[in-house]
Amino acid sequence: MREEFFMISDVRGSPETVRNVVSNSRGLRLLAERVCGKDVKRFFFLGCGSSYYAALFGAWPLLYSGVQAYALPSSEFLFYYSGLAGEGSVVVGVSRSGLTAETVSAVRKARENGAFTVSFTTGVGSELSRECGESFLVDVGEEKSIIMTKSFVGLSLASAIFSSEVSRNLFGRDCRLAGDLSKLSTSAEELLKRESLLQDMAYARVRGGVERFVFLGSGPAYPIALEGALKVKETSYVASEAFHTLEFRHGPMSTLGEKQTLFLVSCRGEGFTPSKRLHSEMLEKNADVIVLTNAQEEFEKPIWVPYVESEEAATLLSIIPVQLFAYHYATARGRNPDRPRNLSRYVERF
Amino acid sequence: MREEFFMISDVRGSPETVRNVVSNSRGLRLLAERVCGKDVKRFFFLGCGSSYYAALFGAWPLLYSGVQAYALPSSEFLFYYSGLAGEGSVVVGVSRSGLTAETVSAVRKARENGAFTVSFTTGVGSELSRECGESFLVDVGEEKSIIMTKSFVGLSLASAIFSSEVSRNLFGRDCRLAGDLSKLSTSAEELLKRESLLQDMAYARVRGGVERFVFLGSGPAYPIALEGALKVKETSYVASEAFHTLEFRHGPMSTLGEKQTLFLVSCRGEGFTPSKRLHSEMLEKNADVIVLTNAQEEFEKPIWVPYVESEEAATLLSIIPVQLFAYHYATARGRNPDRPRNLSRYVERF
Repeated sequence: MREEFFMISDVRGSPETVRNVVSNSRGLRLLAERVCGKDVKRFFFLGCGSSYYAALFGAWPLLYSGVQAYALPSSEFLFYYSGLAGEGSVVVGVSRSGLTAETVSAVRKARENGAFTVSFTTGVGSELSRECGESFLVDVGEEKSIIMTKSFVGLSLASAIFSSEVSRNLFGRDCRLAGDLSKLSTSAEELLKRESLLQDMAYARVRGGVERFVFLGSGPAYPIALEGALKVKETSYVASEAFHTLEFRHGPMSTLGEKQTLFLVSCRGEGFTPSKRLHSEMLEKNADVIVLTNAQEEFEKPIWVPYVESEEAATLLSIIPVQLFAYHYATARGRNPDRPRNLSRYVERF
Repeated sequence: MREEFFMISDVRGSPETVRNVVSNSRGLRLLAERVCGKDVKRFFFLGCGSSYYAALFGAWPLLYSGVQAYALPSSEFLFYYSGLAGEGSVVVGVSRSGLTAETVSAVRKARENGAFTVSFTTGVGSELSRECGESFLVDVGEEKSIIMTKSFVGLSLASAIFSSEVSRNLFGRDCRLAGDLSKLSTSAEELLKRESLLQDMAYARVRGGVERFVFLGSGPAYPIALEGALKVKETSYVASEAFHTLEFRHGPMSTLGEKQTLFLVSCRGEGFTPSKRLHSEMLEKNADVIVLTNAQEEFEKPIWVPYVESEEAATLLSIIPVQLFAYHYATARGRNPDRPRNLSRYVERF
């Protein structure tokens, strides 16, 4: 029997990570209350790589709440935006290790300028936690792989619940994630049962010589599309791009006709109908499309995220099938996903 | 003699477009004054495809000014953010044709909600202009190609000057672009003289079998990196990705070792030193890197944007060599850049 890689056992730990975060949602609510006690004018959510995409997902419930909120790569914040983050600002740093150089520097600079700082990490007593006024520890157990999988799910979910709670505190908005929180880990378990299906889909692409991928998502699905593209790229080194769903029609659609597979994240929400229309148009043009959705009945043979109604929550879980696909695609191509080329667990300096 | 395509004659029209925009900068200042007369709380800059990237570039001087400012694809605004854009909001729609369906719908919805609307287009009397409270006409002459080139330069420059003037009006910030405005068209002309060099570079990549590109840029260079990647993709259908410069080290760097060319936009500014370090690191790893910069002396054989000191302005002009490269790369591969597959001049519905 072939030895298993760390990456796949990490992916299989997602339901437990989800359970841990959900069971600690009271801690996230209290954290949100403490932050809202400050006179908050603006929020910045920062991270690097997968953690940047987790920060982007985490910021989502605040982005359209009316408060000034931004999600940025830590480096961009550091070079261009840190002057804005003084008193009245909350700067949220997301990092698996809590050691990523740009994120630690960004948060330090923000704190020196008078901002209130919060971190989301999986690393106990990390440098980042020590820099921050508040630190939330996301319990993912051990993640042995360099490639972030369950930690992405955990960091995204925790920061998004936090952000929803802030939005509720400041604006009385209902937490859109909350209704589904209890169903999330069951849904994650259900998704893991599709592994052999996703393995077949990955093997079929390897046999078919597909070495190029496009990920499309709108609203909260955009960070998931970015993370999906990164996951395939990090494990197989193939080209893999992400766009806001309808942006595909404004240029990138010229690539239809090349050998490539499209992943479309399309959960029920404001962008659902136009994204379904885009899907039909792509099929008419003979594109190879894999749909990730919570609306099974609307597509032929989609990858279905069951039980979960909220767009944000279903969208987040749709990263799990992509991780499974990426793993099997990489290993079928003879790549070792536990030794991604040129990468390390975290970036120590810049 | 081979017949010339529209695309290349359009690119060669860039200096004139720049001159026209600059000579009308008083109009942009007056427009900014009228907009600032309103009680402005937030700004949204919207567009699709190349026009979205122009909107992102245009928003740049405001993004870090302290006012709440966002640049978004028109579709994302329409689905998720339009509720935020009521009274006190300024919504800026950017569109070459003034007919793009999502942008027209987005601006209409914003106006119905009470937002003040402004458009930047090249199309006289377009639907978008009629929807907007103010409309600025960017004179690019005729652009015959479906692919946007000089119109991207014109729309980006005009909206960025506007944005700088708003920033000066509201915050007393000096217009960072202003110092260089008079030198821009001369610099653009100088860049056109590099055509044969860029043709050689493109041909060398075609001969070398390079069919994959990565564009890196930080701050105001990020929209230029996105537009560069789109330009190559639209004309040659190859995979071509864009990242914030330092984000390359957080995952995408695993692709070093594959056959690909990297474009690095690295002009003097806050992110310059780390981006130079990244460049050295990439060379050590034997990457094929083309540097676009206003700091010639800092790199070996870069594509030099002469005369222009401001980071924004030099960065914007660095799209011109990319357009030249994209054109020659596409035609050398037997593509017709005037008939990009699946694309039309604008998207009529969604």
